[in-house]
Amino acid sequence: MDTATMPPTNVMNGATSLLRTLIASDVRVCFANPGTSEMHFVEALDRVEGMRCVPCLFEGVVSGAADAYYRIAEKPAATLLHLGPGLGNALANLHNAKKARSGIVNVVGEHALEHIRYDAPLTADIEGIARPVSNWVRTSRDARALAADTAAAVEAAREYPGQVATLVLPANVAWETAEGTAMARAPSPPARVSKEAIAAGAAALKNGASTVLLLGGGAVRGRPLELAGRIAAKTGCRLMAEFALARAEGGAGRVGFAKIPYVVDAATAALAGARQMVLVGSRPPVSFFAYPDKPSLQAPHDCLMVPVARVDQDVTDALGALADALGAAATPPAGVCQRSKDKPPTGPITPEGIAAVVAALLPENAIVVDESVSTGRGFARAMTGAAPHDWMNIMGGSIGWGLPAAVGAAVAAPGRKVVVMESDGSAMYTISALWSLAREGLDATILLFSNRSYRILQGELTRMGGGRKGSASMNLLELDQPPLDWKSLATGHGLQFARAETLEDLARAFDRGLKSGGPNLVEVVLP
Amino acid sequence: MDTATMPPTNVMNGATSLLRTLIASDVRVCFANPGTSEMHFVEALDRVEGMRCVPCLFEGVVSGAADAYYRIAEKPAATLLHLGPGLGNALANLHNAKKARSGIVNVVGEHALEHIRYDAPLTADIEGIARPVSNWVRTSRDARALAADTAAAVEAAREYPGQVATLVLPANVAWETAEGTAMARAPSPPARVSKEAIAAGAAALKNGASTVLLLGGGAVRGRPLELAGRIAAKTGCRLMAEFALARAEGGAGRVGFAKIPYVVDAATAALAGARQMVLVGSRPPVSFFAYPDKPSLQAPHDCLMVPVARVDQDVTDALGALADALGAAATPPAGVCQRSKDKPPTGPITPEGIAAVVAALLPENAIVVDESVSTGRGFARAMTGAAPHDWMNIMGGSIGWGLPAAVGAAVAAPGRKVVVMESDGSAMYTISALWSLAREGLDATILLFSNRSYRILQGELTRMGGGRKGSASMNLLELDQPPLDWKSLATGHGLQFARAETLEDLARAFDRGLKSGGPNLVEVVLP
Repeated sequence: MDTATMPPTNVMNGATSLLRTLIASDVRVCFANPGTSEMHFVEALDRVEGMRCVPCLFEGVVSGAADAYYRIAEKPAATLLHLGPGLGNALANLHNAKKARSGIVNVVGEHALEHIRYDAPLTADIEGIARPVSNWVRTSRDARALAADTAAAVEAAREYPGQVATLVLPANVAWETAEGTAMARAPSPPARVSKEAIAAGAAALKNGASTVLLLGGGAVRGRPLELAGRIAAKTGCRLMAEFALARAEGGAGRVGFAKIPYVVDAATAALAGARQMVLVGSRPPVSFFAYPDKPSLQAPHDCLMVPVARVDQDVTDALGALADALGAAATPPAGVCQRSKDKPPTGPITPEGIAAVVAALLPENAIVVDESVSTGRGFARAMTGAAPHDWMNIMGGSIGWGLPAAVGAAVAAPGRKVVVMESDGSAMYTISALWSLAREGLDATILLFSNRSYRILQGELTRMGGGRKGSASMNLLELDQPPLDWKSLATGHGLQFARAETLEDLARAFDRGLKSGGPNLVEVVLP
Repeated sequence: MDTATMPPTNVMNGATSLLRTLIASDVRVCFANPGTSEMHFVEALDRVEGMRCVPCLFEGVVSGAADAYYRIAEKPAATLLHLGPGLGNALANLHNAKKARSGIVNVVGEHALEHIRYDAPLTADIEGIARPVSNWVRTSRDARALAADTAAAVEAAREYPGQVATLVLPANVAWETAEGTAMARAPSPPARVSKEAIAAGAAALKNGASTVLLLGGGAVRGRPLELAGRIAAKTGCRLMAEFALARAEGGAGRVGFAKIPYVVDAATAALAGARQMVLVGSRPPVSFFAYPDKPSLQAPHDCLMVPVARVDQDVTDALGALADALGAAATPPAGVCQRSKDKPPTGPITPEGIAAVVAALLPENAIVVDESVSTGRGFARAMTGAAPHDWMNIMGGSIGWGLPAAVGAAVAAPGRKVVVMESDGSAMYTISALWSLAREGLDATILLFSNRSYRILQGELTRMGGGRKGSASMNLLELDQPPLDWKSLATGHGLQFARAETLEDLARAFDRGLKSGGPNLVEVVLP
């Protein structure tokens, strides 16, 4: 562009209008990996104050960070992505975000509208790529409508409990003269459940049959969780939660609950004997994968499902109404977790030992990002004795979420410690997230569980083949030739590093990492 | 799964049938990143011989490798991807592959068909994700039809010049009893162009007007390139090629041609004065991006386009017929490149100096993977004096292709040296490709151009803002805080490493890297 054709800086172009609308709508963080078609957005950042941009080296970091940011900040971040392929790179973690019901405003650059017909190299069906992972998609076609389009995107992202909204921004819409700034309407509160649903739930909880109160969504933290504990105390129902939770409260002082296990046989066993399942923020539990001759639904065939509140309904109101109907509003909650006085154990590294070390040392109000896959399957029990904390799971099952999520959580919560339970295989999908942690100086401690394999898949294969393990299959499931050198990978991206080969190493390194206040990685060497 | 429910190993299940059909159809390499839903495919590898599987730690490596493999091997590889998100991670390099017209058979795992309705965490609209980056998409719904579906996928992938074919494989279709093995039909030859098109091209080339013969696709190598050189010698037309070429021959003994420059003003200048453009395997040249007040089409307004052969037509036949019509079949080709006798230069690192070093030392028959972006823009001139080689460009403009492409090229061509011209920003999208290079012990030397920035975007921003560079915009375009430590990143993934701070360092390190015969990375430190 000739400088002669540039609008003077006091004239508003589309990019400026977009940026001002985001900021006016309280979208104040943008995880970004821009390209040429987004340069007007980037240029506008020098003229409009109020947007914190976090540079990421890969778009999967962008989208994973935005997912976790929403879960902690409870308001959407924006992303900045480069046309169809940039959105494609963000896709797996947008899938996870959509399943987590996180609100995100994706801004995806596009060619100038007149340029699309020429099928230049980066031309792609952006809306087609966006649709499977978005709840809302719109291509803005006029700079003068861009403020309104942006406000609509923010409104869509905020729709309770949260949605992925994708706004496609053609380059000319960004550079042409625009008008004004819009502000997204305040979000509507979640819908309340019907009196009939409360009555049905209360009736089930009173009828004496063996009952599971299954929590999900917003019901595993704060006031709703406390209410669930009162209901359990009053009625004797079992308090359980879905296998994966976007953000759950745990540790001392919080009501404890059991999560449905991942492994199908363990899940079926855990639910055996349940005659009724009262669903609050949850759905009838389903296996992660299907297997020959195993059921997809995990509850017993004759277990009656009693849906009280969907995840997009008001679970606080629903549990309050249930407690009232049951006379449990003042009942002291059952199963409140107690702080364990156990010292961190010593000796060889085991999953149980890791859990005990983390539980002993986890700081108050930490945010735990859990992508520990096979290593972390039994962590929950020990964590009931930890200091109070938030615990976040990957919601869409697409690994490569943990390190990006650490970026987003730490940006959302300055002053809180972020602890990441990460697996070596999972970490490698989005390893460059480490650089964003270093770039922003974020307070995150990563426990990297190094078992040099896709251990979860080895388990699947062993079960499948009756113990057979051939060299061709193992070639795809072992990561030990060459081994990944975690010291190099961590320091190469700018992080502090320590290695733990015993539990006492781990306790020392974890403590030091937490105290450092900056991003650091502890390789936990599993046998 | 209980072992009791496993079919005995001599019974064919869907996965076995799929694998045998691929091998029978000469698809003998699979770039893979499997998950639980693909375990039956993985298990079948222990029972069926003939498939080389290359494990990758991220699906963008899988798809970029498959793209480059096709360009060199001239037959498709398979990929193995884990449901919608795994396909999503592969999407950017599938976009590049589709634009390159590379043939790929994607095998994408899916939940068992009965399980899809339960909306488990990994459930996604796989076909919807596949469609924007695939020429052919099918979900196989019956194990007994899987062999035929697989053969159809291979046939689609091979359709000239090459297509992305995506076969979705539900888990139950993989595990259920199947029948037989199919074999893909041999591909049809490319369509010949009409006599009228040849006559129009010949007439244009004879009429004395200033003419560009613009090559693309298969016309920039082998017999077609030589024929183009004869035509240029006979008619005096200018021989040019599209900006991005999937695989071009260059260096001593090959007919030289100028590529249309990337920067719009340079492209317009290079084409100024052209009255006619004869298109063989190419399209009217289009800018990579649009800019305000610049044209999308780069040829002069009054330049007559004479389409002779599309990229999917038989360019060898077309150029042969043109040469015959022009009496050029025996004319010695114009512009045959001569081996330069220049010694590698010494002194500070400059783009020109890098090009001269590489040109001097490039081994005979090397494959050059070029993702050098801003640093490499002027490399072509020097390369005319290099030993004969193949040169591959990124075709869809989505960076993060170079390192994966090195994996695919090296697997396709044992015995040839692969040289990668890579930029630091681009490398970070798919950095774990380094591990696959190390895992397979591939003969690849990576020249990593470290300028610690998205230099190309800084250029765009400077042009746009008339020289203004604010701190907010630069925050997104500089990669120097913290700097990426390339020694750690290379060795951490298992590669040999050297750093070059002068051209003599570069010459030494490049030579040593080539001689090592294994994967190695040379950081070329740019000012």
